[in-house]
Formats: sequence, structure tokens, C-alpha cells
Amino acid sequence: MQKKFLLLSLVLPTLSLAAEGMWTMDNLPNNKLQAEYAYKPNAEWVKNTMLSSVKLPGCSGSFVSRDGLVMTNHHCASSCIEQLSTAKQNYIEHGFLAKKREEELTCPALELNRLEEITDVTEEIKKATAGLEDGKFKQAQNAISNRLTSACVGEDKEKTRCDIVDLYHGGRYHLYKYHRYADTRLVWAPEKAIAFFGGDPDNFNFPRYDLDITMLRVYEDGKPADIKYFFPFSKIGPQEGELTFVTGHPGSTQRQLTVSQLNSLRDIGLIDGLQHMAELRGVLTQYRKTSPEAARTADQMLFGIENSYKAGVGRLKTLLDPEFIARKEAEELALRQFVDARPELKGKIGGAWDAINKAQERYRQLHRITSMTEGAAAFSSNYFRIARTLVRAADEKVKASADRLPEFTDNRLAGVQQMLFSKAPIYPEFEKIKLTHSLTKMREDLGTDHVFVKQVLGKLSPEQLTEKLISKTRLADVEYRKTLWNGGKEAIVQSDDPFIKLALAIDTESRNASKRMQQEVQSVVQKNSELIAQARFLQSGTSVYPDATATLRLSYGEVKGWQLGERSIKPFTTFAGAFEHDTGTAPFALPASWLAAKNKLNLQQPYNFVTNNDIIGGNSGSPLINKNGEIVGLAFDGNIHSLGGAFWFDGRSNRTIAVHSAAILEAMDKIYNAQELLKELSSK
Amino acid sequence: MQKKFLLLSLVLPTLSLAAEGMWTMDNLPNNKLQAEYAYKPNAEWVKNTMLSSVKLPGCSGSFVSRDGLVMTNHHCASSCIEQLSTAKQNYIEHGFLAKKREEELTCPALELNRLEEITDVTEEIKKATAGLEDGKFKQAQNAISNRLTSACVGEDKEKTRCDIVDLYHGGRYHLYKYHRYADTRLVWAPEKAIAFFGGDPDNFNFPRYDLDITMLRVYEDGKPADIKYFFPFSKIGPQEGELTFVTGHPGSTQRQLTVSQLNSLRDIGLIDGLQHMAELRGVLTQYRKTSPEAARTADQMLFGIENSYKAGVGRLKTLLDPEFIARKEAEELALRQFVDARPELKGKIGGAWDAINKAQERYRQLHRITSMTEGAAAFSSNYFRIARTLVRAADEKVKASADRLPEFTDNRLAGVQQMLFSKAPIYPEFEKIKLTHSLTKMREDLGTDHVFVKQVLGKLSPEQLTEKLISKTRLADVEYRKTLWNGGKEAIVQSDDPFIKLALAIDTESRNASKRMQQEVQSVVQKNSELIAQARFLQSGTSVYPDATATLRLSYGEVKGWQLGERSIKPFTTFAGAFEHDTGTAPFALPASWLAAKNKLNLQQPYNFVTNNDIIGGNSGSPLINKNGEIVGLAFDGNIHSLGGAFWFDGRSNRTIAVHSAAILEAMDKIYNAQELLKELSSK
Repeated sequence: MQKKFLLLSLVLPTLSLAAEGMWTMDNLPNNKLQAEYAYKPNAEWVKNTMLSSVKLPGCSGSFVSRDGLVMTNHHCASSCIEQLSTAKQNYIEHGFLAKKREEELTCPALELNRLEEITDVTEEIKKATAGLEDGKFKQAQNAISNRLTSACVGEDKEKTRCDIVDLYHGGRYHLYKYHRYADTRLVWAPEKAIAFFGGDPDNFNFPRYDLDITMLRVYEDGKPADIKYFFPFSKIGPQEGELTFVTGHPGSTQRQLTVSQLNSLRDIGLIDGLQHMAELRGVLTQYRKTSPEAARTADQMLFGIENSYKAGVGRLKTLLDPEFIARKEAEELALRQFVDARPELKGKIGGAWDAINKAQERYRQLHRITSMTEGAAAFSSNYFRIARTLVRAADEKVKASADRLPEFTDNRLAGVQQMLFSKAPIYPEFEKIKLTHSLTKMREDLGTDHVFVKQVLGKLSPEQLTEKLISKTRLADVEYRKTLWNGGKEAIVQSDDPFIKLALAIDTESRNASKRMQQEVQSVVQKNSELIAQARFLQSGTSVYPDATATLRLSYGEVKGWQLGERSIKPFTTFAGAFEHDTGTAPFALPASWLAAKNKLNLQQPYNFVTNNDIIGGNSGSPLINKNGEIVGLAFDGNIHSLGGAFWFDGRSNRTIAVHSAAILEAMDKIYNAQELLKELSSK
Repeated sequence: MQKKFLLLSLVLPTLSLAAEGMWTMDNLPNNKLQAEYAYKPNAEWVKNTMLSSVKLPGCSGSFVSRDGLVMTNHHCASSCIEQLSTAKQNYIEHGFLAKKREEELTCPALELNRLEEITDVTEEIKKATAGLEDGKFKQAQNAISNRLTSACVGEDKEKTRCDIVDLYHGGRYHLYKYHRYADTRLVWAPEKAIAFFGGDPDNFNFPRYDLDITMLRVYEDGKPADIKYFFPFSKIGPQEGELTFVTGHPGSTQRQLTVSQLNSLRDIGLIDGLQHMAELRGVLTQYRKTSPEAARTADQMLFGIENSYKAGVGRLKTLLDPEFIARKEAEELALRQFVDARPELKGKIGGAWDAINKAQERYRQLHRITSMTEGAAAFSSNYFRIARTLVRAADEKVKASADRLPEFTDNRLAGVQQMLFSKAPIYPEFEKIKLTHSLTKMREDLGTDHVFVKQVLGKLSPEQLTEKLISKTRLADVEYRKTLWNGGKEAIVQSDDPFIKLALAIDTESRNASKRMQQEVQSVVQKNSELIAQARFLQSGTSVYPDATATLRLSYGEVKGWQLGERSIKPFTTFAGAFEHDTGTAPFALPASWLAAKNKLNLQQPYNFVTNNDIIGGNSGSPLINKNGEIVGLAFDGNIHSLGGAFWFDGRSNRTIAVHSAAILEAMDKIYNAQELLKELSSK
């Protein structure tokens, strides 16, 4: 053990740093780009890229026409496609194409955002929290954040959204202003069989053969939105070694966490989380086999779980990798020594790591009850989500915006209502599966005799309580939700809906759990992370990019395969490969449309490809663009080695997986006969 | 990090060592017992204890009458009870009592063993392997083991079993000779609802209210076996603080592994293993809901998984506990320093830890394919287990005993046949669930393009292959199995049974995988563990007990509650508590027999209790006996804190959970009206 740090420099191979980084639009790595690719994006290019990029919930997308056409992944739009499907008209299975604009279908609950403006508000926020500790610190930070975002949104709540973005774990705070598109419609989606060819077995793998694309259109005032900035399509796509950019919204990386934070993440977020996910995956896998309708209603959730599960397994692998751990410990030690060697820093910052470590111990004590109550892990059901929102809205709406829970401030209310009054169907049988399972896990995780378990279950079994709740609830009825929303606290208290009563009964305990976690963990971490961020700036300046925060980032890289032991993985696949991998059985069955079009297709057309762009979950649906700002590909996945990208960028093997732009055009033309769309894509 | 060892002595509380240890019958801790309890068992007591103790597969038991009556846990005999049940006559649900001997039901596949003799064969084995490396080492060890056990069994193969027992990880090798009882019959089992009251939620918890007992009887030559040594029942049971002994067969502890072995165990055995178990648990949980028959056929396996899962979660918790890790690292460091400081040891033993570490790296590379092939993890099905046994038997039976795979040596063949020709039912629908799932995991874990996956699946999906195999197999037919067994290699090669063909097709790859693992991992670990064991003997002699190895051990302790934060857990529960915890809904529903007998029962009768005896999985079914060799309880579980007992004994909270002897007698009398059995238990 004691020799670890001595050996470090001898045993660790140097990681390629080329292509590393998810850069904010106001701090691009121009010098690196110039040095490595003799290219420097000009202001117009940057502006066009920012304004053509779109944020979807948990995903990315881009404008691809003047008339509001948005390209993203099929798996990013599939909740909309699933909600629009019925047992008789299954667009997930058969795909969808609107031949005319009037045929485009409104997504029940899909909001898109486009970043318009970035303002540095670091000084305002730090001033508001200066000298405060724990609960007071977090309270003051929430208050100033609410004030700033409310002022930013102003009167135009329907079309504007503003967020405070915490960069470098408190090193910088920026105010991001978005144009909000609430009316999104489905234009084109291929069959899931080709969008997700290879299914879970091939997820995060390459070679791949997926047409993971969907086209949406945003409307404003009932008409296709008038869009000034968009990306044109490249008809030839990229060459091996060509410089590519990915613009999108990577969700979250943990490259700047302390070792003690990484350990909590390993034990709770990953080890414990994966066990829970695995069991639920088993439940859903077996449930979906009971009927085609069970499969149709459960598959969207199952996909999400399988995707997160595989990603989690990959991330955990990195957190258990001795090479990685040694590097992190060495980095942390170096930064601590940098601080300790400077008396002016030591007194102020030196204790930050231990403070965060202590907060992690508290987190380990609190996380389970907090997750069950405030996190609603005990109540996995859309009904409960709706009930809680209604119960809390009744308490929050009457307060001044700045005093509300963050999710109910003025600038968020439009989004809350869109979710709450969505006509997206709820399937009672499926809700029963989820709720029974989550109640059972609550009893298991907290223990039979826990006071919260007794409060929730009484003498009922999880099955009995589920039955009682779901058979009597009226929350499937959107009108009833509106009545409760408009009726305020009185309507809530008088409602005899069992989910409303449940959400009401546990609200105090939930809020208390959340408060405890905020005061004793999050505030401590936030405050001390700010200190560590300061130290890091002093050590290396802003030549470092901030951890991903589900905000717009640009990464650069090039088309490039990788080496797996003695095997060279080539960067491109072709249409021919898709036909070679067709077994006729899901998830390796090409859809009928492909089999029918085989003779018309150029089988040598490059289909999927890989680049060494630095991306992470949330980048799904990101366009790959070239120096000219043309779309050369559509990112839909990372390879298995990219999963550790949450914690470090290993350029030796971390790869982005994309659909080739020319393959998209060829498929639209020869397989899907989407001539109108093709015309729209090629018009300026 | 560097300060860890300096801080160690300051921050670690001293663990209570009292009661620690699972001692072999030939090396009892007499001095400790004398010092702590002023008691020293005499030779007669030890002999009686050894010869009254019984080994069941994965469990323990004891003789309790002259006529071969055996007491164990319900959950240790439940596979027999389940195999004897049908959809119409469900003994799991309703319990079973043979009012006369003729009504006792033969268990289809349950072999019991009683230890008769222990011989030290360390010298013979070490001589046979001296100077050999890797594959040669393991080969020589197998050969001498086969020779010794064959000689030990002699001609009486039906009634004798002999095993080489590896103690102290190669520090000692003993030859254990058992009397083998192959004809075991079911005498009495209460309803599962009371045997496993509280179900999985209360498993490993206390207070508890379980009557986890079953009575079996062993027969020889068609008559109840004539037994000389057995334990009489204590009618009053134990008092708080009273000295108690547990005699039984603890399966496996890992208290003497190196840190690198603990890390492999953490990552592969536990983290990876638990994820796989959790998913299968979800599958079975959902499957059992599809029909009562599905529940009946799946519940035995589901219980096993839930039990192992919870145990695994507890064990993992210890392996992630910084206090535990620091202690293990310190212990290892101390032993290494002890070796390095002695030139005569350093050259011979100093490299052992690094060699084991290197073998662990190889293990990480090999384990997945080995587990899928040789471990048959890809083919979870009783049909496959039977097919593989038949395929291998055909190859092995023609060899000399000493050259065979260990499981086919002469002394094991009777057991192999008992399993193979058992009439235990196989449920095709349930087999499909298991096999589909395991084939799916094979594809996921090895990858779609893996050569073994392609060999097994071809172009079929896991569902299609499962259907093809199970719809055509004849292996459910015991006569067909006999034909193949007797027909030898020719019958196997000519069989068109799809499972036989599958087992045959992958046998070379499986054997190769096993061989690689033996040569490159197991042999290296075995050889170097022997060296470390030598160092440990030199450091502390045999005052240390060996890790558990599923062989007979005695542990001592006393009836004692524990402290959980500010809460004192009392050591006894009562019958009254069981009625208080009855909710009427599984798993908290008392059976009708209990409700009917409530008025007759002494509700203040102590029911379950805890002691600080050191036990582990495999001890289920062990009797607790007092100084007089009388049964005062029946161990059926450990508390949640006992799970880390795999790696260390934490006397502060590690507890054994048992049924009180007087509660057993009271229930047999007042609830089950088992007067004949009671009479038998009280006769000398």
C-alpha cells in the first residue's frame, strides 16, 4: 500500500488527452484546436452552432430546417411515440411518417429548449451566500437563484426558461436563458426494430447497424416555428480522420469529485442502485412476456432501465479499477499538497476534503429514507407523481416565487402544468406492477418495523395497498387533476382520492428528509466544493472544462477506430453489414421495409461510425458537424469503453457512435419514401 | 491515505474475541472454554457430539432418537418436501405428519452423512506435491486425494463416503470418513407459513417467530437405522447467559484470505454475482404471480436466491467497510513484515502474496467464460445438469478411479447415481423460464459476437433455443437416463436428445476452461496459500481455528441479546409475540393450526432466541446443546450483523438465531398433536 504513489508514475500509461473535454460555448479550447487541427471556429460558426442546438429531456437534438424540423434519436423521442401508440396502432413497432404537415401528431408531454444567452452571475451568488453555513447557505443560494431566474424569465413564461448553471462545482455560476418550445409534434420515426437493431445485447457496442433517428417539429401559435439558425445536411458525410464536433447536452460527469464522493457514488449510486435496477429489470422482463399489451406498455421503461443498467455497470468498472483509483488519489493528493504548501490557502481551503468526507458519512445514513420519501422510490407510479405535484403545488403556489420549492418557481410552472395536464395514457395494470414492486422494496430496505413502513402499509401487504390505491384513484382523469390544481389547498384536503391522501400523509416526513439532506449534506458539499474549485483554478486556470451539467457543450474529435487487444476496430460499418447480421428474430430482425428495399439500396453506403469525441449520456441525439457547420452524423451511443467517461476520458478507447448523414438520406429516400422531408432538408 | 496505519490503533474499537471460532472436533479451544466458562468438555462428550451430528447438503442436523430420527430446519428439507408435493397435495403449504412409520415418505434425492473418523494426511499430500508448479501441482494433488479417499471408502461404497479436507488453506489436510445414509424419509414438517413466518422481509432479522423445523428419519435396509449416539431434548431450554454449543457444518468463511482475494470476491463473487441474482429474483418474483402452480414450482428456488442475495448484500457491506479493510490490510502487512524480517522465510514465502495477486488478475480474465461453460451458468436447467452428468460419466467411468474428474471417483459414484436417477419431478414450464434467462445472460455477458455464444445460439434467440431443447428432450424419463448411463459413450454419441447433444458439443470447451482455471489460478492460489498458512502457524500456532469448509465444527457462546445504537435487543421472543405480529397476510399470516390452538398454548413460552455462537451459512439445522449434551435449541438463522461473519467475527452484534427446545415440544404437543414423535423424543 505505502508504495502506491511511488509506483504511480512508472506503471500508468499516459492517457491520450487529445479530444478530451466538454466545453462551454463561451470558453472553447481554441488553442488546442489550432494546435491539433489547425482550425479555429469563428464567432459566426459558434453562434450558429449554439442556436441550432436543442435540448430535450435527458437528450439532445438540432434544428435541421427553417420550418422548425428537429432531428434527434428515436430513443429520445420514444416516450412520445409510445404515448401516441395504441394496441391497434403501434408506431413503435411499425414506425410513423407524416406525409403532410397536417398529419404530424402532437406529443403529449415533450418540451424542447434552445439556449439563447449566457450570463455570468458568479459574483451575485457568492455575495448572497458569503459567510453562511449549512442550511442557511443553501437557503440563501436558493433565494438568489430564484430571484435571478424569475427576473430572467420576466413576463414571457410560456416561451422562456431560465436556469442557474453551477459550473466547476461552484467555481462559476452562469444564468442560461432558453427559448421554450412546448408544442412538439412527431414527423417521422422508423421502426424500433431498426432504430434499436441489436437491442440491449448490442447497446454500447460497436460495430453497429442502427438507424436511431426521429424527426420532430416544433410549433408556435399553431404553426411550424420560424427558425433562423439550423444545420444543413452533408450529403457525403465524414472521412476517416476528419475533424468532427458534437454539440449537445451531456448530462453529468463526475471527473472533479473528491475520492470520498466517488466512494459514496460507488457504494450507493452504483452498487446499491444496480442491484435495485437489476431486480426491477427482471420483473419487467418477465411481465412483458405475459401479453403483447404488457410488452407495449412496459418496454419504454424497460429500455430505460437496461440502458442505465449497462451504463452503470461500465461506470462501476472504472470506480473499481486500481489504475483509475490510484490516479484519482494521486490527483487529490497533489491538489491538497498545493493548498497545504500555501499558508493563505491552507487555512481557508485545507479542511474542505475532510468536510466533504464527513458529509458523505452523513449521506450514507440519510440516503435510504430520503430516497424512499422525498425521492418517492417507495411509490413508483405515475399516479403518485401526479398526486405529489398537486399536493405540493397547493402549498407552494400561494407563496412568493422566491420562497417556493425550486421546482415550483414562476419560471418552472409552465413546465409543471404541461406534465400535469398531459393526456399521456396511464396503464393501470402496469402501474400495479411498478407500485407493488417499489412498496415491497421499501419494506425490505427500511425493514418491517420501520415507522415509515408501518405508516404506509399498516397491516396491508404491498399487493393489497397497491390494489386499494389503484382501484380507487381518479387521477387518470386530466379534468380531475385540473380541478385539484385550481381548487388549491382546500380541494386537496377534501379530496378522497387515495393517492392524494397518501401524498398528503407523507409530505411532512418527505420535506423533512429533504431538508435534512440539504442542510447536512448538500450544503456542506456545495460550500466545500466551491473551495476546492478555487484551489483548482489557482492550480490550473480555466484551461480545464467543467463537469457536464446537462447544459450545452461542444466537444471535438475525429473519425477513428480503436485497438482492442490485438483486434483493430474499423470506424465504419455499411448497410451490407446490417443485412449480414439479420437473423430474422428480435432484436436482430430487420424490418420488412428494409428487406423490401434491399435491391434499391447502395449496400456499400457507410452506415454507423465512431469518433473520439468526448460525450456522455444526455448527448444522445446530438448532431456531429464538420468545420462547415454541416451535419455529418447523428450521435446515438458511446462504446462500452466510453462508460468510464463519467470519471475520466480515456482517449485510447472511448468512442462516440453515430449514424452517417448520407445513410440517413439514403434510407429516407429508398426505404421510407420520405421525399417531402428530403426536400425540406435540402432547402436553405 | 498514508496516515491510515498510524491511525489504526486509535480509531478501531477492540472487537470482542469471546465466542469467536468454528473449531474442529480434534482441536477444541479447551483453554479458552476453561478460562471463560470454567468448563472443559470431556472425551465422551466430544465423541457423543461428533457422532450425533449429521450433515445435509448445504445444511446441518442431528440425531434425536435411537431410531434414526433427524432434526433439521424446514428450509434445509424443503426441496424434499417440495418434490413430494403436487398441485393437489401441497405439503409446503399445509405441512406433513406421518402418524405411523409406514406413512413416512421417501425423499427423492436426499443424502445424509455422519462424520466417523478424522485422519491427518498432511504429510502424504505435501510429499506428493513437493516441488511441483501450477498444473502439475494440482494434478498431483488430485491424484493423491483420489488415492486416499478410494482406499478409505474401500468396498462399502453404499454406506461410506470419504473426503480430503483442506484446513487453513493448505496448512493441514485431513481425511474425513463419513457414514452415508441414502434412504431418508419425511416424518414431520409444519406449514411453511410458520416455518418461515416473516418471509424474506424478516429473514436475517430478530426478533423472530419461526418454527423452522423438520423431522426426517434415515433408513437402512428398509428399516429405521439403529443409532447409538443421539441428543436428548431439554424440556426447559436455555437461560440468558447460559453456555451453549453449536455443532454443525458451517459452509465457508473467508477470514484468512489475502486482500487481493477479498477484492476479487468483492468484485466478481459479490458485486457481479448480486446483480445477476437480483435480476433472476425479479424474473422469478414476477413468474410466480402468473399461477399457483408457477408459485409452487418456483418458490423453492426463489427462497434460495433471496436468502443468498440478502446474505451477499450483508457480506459485501463488510467488504466495503473502511474499518474492516483497514484491519485486513494491517493484518496482512504485519504477517508480511513477520516473513520479511526472517531471511529463512523471506526467500521461500515472501513472494506468496504477489503470486496470489497475479493469479487474481488471471481469474478476472477467465472467470466469465469458465462460469458460462464449466460452471454451466449459461444453461440453468435440471435437464442440462442431468445431460452433462451422463455425458461426462460416459467418458470418466472407463478410466481408473484416480484418473477421473474428482466428482466421478469411486467414492462419489453412489451419490452421482442417487441424484441422476432421482424421481424428483422436473417442471418444463419452469425450466423454460430459467433456461431462457440464463441463455440471455450468456449472450449479454460474453457479447453477441463471442464464438461460444455463436456456437450455442447459432441464429436462434434464447427463447427459440429453449423451446427447441425442452420440447424435444426425453431426460425427464428416469428410465431413459438409466439407458444412457448403462450404454456408455456409444449410447451418448448416438442419442438424439437435444440436451445430450448440447452437453456433448460444448464439453471440450468446458473442460478446457476448467483446466485453464485450475492451472493458472487455483493451483497458484493453493500453493501460495499453503506458504502463507505456514507463516501464520509460525506467527501464532494452531491456537487459530481454520476457515469453515463445510465440515463438522463446534462453536461456543451464550444466550445474549445485543445493543443497536440506543436500542437493547432482548434475547428471547414468545409465542404471544407471534400472535401479535400476525397480519393475516403472507408472509405475516399464522397458519390455521396456530389460530385454532391459541387457547391451549402457553403464550409466555419462550419461542426464538439469540446467542453469540459463531456460525455461518451451512449451520442451518444445527442443534444448540448445553453442557449436558441436551438440545436446548435449533439454529435456523443469523442476524443481519452475522453476515459479515464470512470475513471477521464481530462479537458486538453477530448473533445466532434459534428455536427454543421447549417451544418445539409445546408446538408438537398442542398444535400438531404429534404424540408419537414426542414419545420417541423422550425415550432413552
